[in-house]
Amino acid sequence: MKLLTYKTQDSDEPRLGFIHNNQIIDMEDFGEISNFPLPTTMLELIDMGFELVEELNDMIADTEPAFFEEIAYEMDEVTFLAPIPKPRKNIIGIGLNYTEHVAESARTLDTTGKLPQKPIIFSKPPTTVTATNTDIIKNTKLTSQLDWEVELAVVIGKKGKYVPKADAMDYVFGYTVINDISARDCRREGQWIVSKGQDTFAPMGPILVTKDEIKNPHNLNLSLKVNGIEKQNSNTKFLLFNINDLIEDLSTVFTLEPGDIIATGTPSGVGAGRNPQEWLYDGDVIEATVEGIGTIVNTVKEI
Amino acid sequence: MKLLTYKTQDSDEPRLGFIHNNQIIDMEDFGEISNFPLPTTMLELIDMGFELVEELNDMIADTEPAFFEEIAYEMDEVTFLAPIPKPRKNIIGIGLNYTEHVAESARTLDTTGKLPQKPIIFSKPPTTVTATNTDIIKNTKLTSQLDWEVELAVVIGKKGKYVPKADAMDYVFGYTVINDISARDCRREGQWIVSKGQDTFAPMGPILVTKDEIKNPHNLNLSLKVNGIEKQNSNTKFLLFNINDLIEDLSTVFTLEPGDIIATGTPSGVGAGRNPQEWLYDGDVIEATVEGIGTIVNTVKEI
Repeated sequence: MKLLTYKTQDSDEPRLGFIHNNQIIDMEDFGEISNFPLPTTMLELIDMGFELVEELNDMIADTEPAFFEEIAYEMDEVTFLAPIPKPRKNIIGIGLNYTEHVAESARTLDTTGKLPQKPIIFSKPPTTVTATNTDIIKNTKLTSQLDWEVELAVVIGKKGKYVPKADAMDYVFGYTVINDISARDCRREGQWIVSKGQDTFAPMGPILVTKDEIKNPHNLNLSLKVNGIEKQNSNTKFLLFNINDLIEDLSTVFTLEPGDIIATGTPSGVGAGRNPQEWLYDGDVIEATVEGIGTIVNTVKEI
Repeated sequence: MKLLTYKTQDSDEPRLGFIHNNQIIDMEDFGEISNFPLPTTMLELIDMGFELVEELNDMIADTEPAFFEEIAYEMDEVTFLAPIPKPRKNIIGIGLNYTEHVAESARTLDTTGKLPQKPIIFSKPPTTVTATNTDIIKNTKLTSQLDWEVELAVVIGKKGKYVPKADAMDYVFGYTVINDISARDCRREGQWIVSKGQDTFAPMGPILVTKDEIKNPHNLNLSLKVNGIEKQNSNTKFLLFNINDLIEDLSTVFTLEPGDIIATGTPSGVGAGRNPQEWLYDGDVIEATVEGIGTIVNTVKEI
């Protein structure tokens, strides 16, 4: 399924929906026409387990097109929110997870340049999350080195501790795109949370694609443009630690829980790694794309 | 108020209560005898605003002792849970916030030894939280350098962004104790989250004391014993960045929200700073105390 959280002009309340034949179907409305009560938020849906997605796929296939027409919105009638507007804990970020990005980071930041032996983990608070078509707030009192990072994000579907690599995909619910916005000059004693944790520093979306629709998450192009000019272009096949590796390692450290989000790391081409370095300024438009999921577009707003 | 989350032998469901005359009064029961519906979780109570605490103080003062007797538990009849068993985001940890601890850390860890110019921030996921009288799980495959850190923790009471120092106390709900357990050998590319973020690495409690009961949070003794021997003993007056400073700075970076928890940093005397270094092993009992709040006791369990 292609799931989304959205709001309409009539209501500020976030709604859960899915995309069907290029239209948006509200989940609660679909439950009503199907006589089958359905969850009203993404986290509730994830909590109910992946089986519900399989059931929904069947229900949708069995529903007459005419029924959908009555409850469908056109794509441009709604406002896309982040698929999980308010995660239950900090987003789990992975650093230095593409070889070329390890190299460019060591040239210009304070990282060692060695290929990590284990995933490098950091976090982004729930207050970093913002949707596509929103502003990224650059607080000029805090940073003059605002940077971009397109990433494939994995959404966890069920609780797991000590998950073996081979079983990792059972714990995945689906995928979305995150732009891991980073203020390079905000590291403190080497810690990244102020660099990566400021409000609006995790644009996410535009939708959440369930795992059944992504044939191979380890072969997805990902790219990023600033003001229309391509800055990053790579493929998830170059991940140093792939999704299976990450889930095995992370679940050794933390208990993974439904709704947890793992931002799997960015490829090369970030502003800090360029010669000369490039940073984001007021009005810059960033488009972050992952194949099979979509593009999130955000504008930098200086305050 | 002295608030707690607890469970009884009859029910595994966490209950919200308060301590009155050395007995535990269940909040929901108190609401029933007072004909005043009351929240059933700590986070709900915090969400309702500090005014409710003031109102509850008045209601308690106006209640006949006989009424309490009917609904009171003795202290040893209940199991204390962490005051906030499941925070809504990662605990905000502050590193290197006591002068002597900055010095001892630089001697033995990889920190610079310079007094920080701004608070050093890291995070501990909600899955780190555990109660008093529970085990701290030491995964011997991950660490052989498990360490202790007693800290005063501040619980935020209302949403705030760009909070000026002078107004910071308006945003505080109350205080609790956190033992910021740290596996010193689990840093990755300098990041602390694996060191400090493993399951059970944030013993918290035994209770949450609302701010009206702590005359001066910047003059509280805090101390820690391992197997009965004192290892840390200091006072919150030695905080480099005090609570007002922290709230001003943190709220510049993140929007603070009700129920957010700030672990304000540990004084000197940690195992890593000793000569020779000392670490925690299976069966070690750690008591972490902050004046006016209480003591949390935990046992190390190696797996």
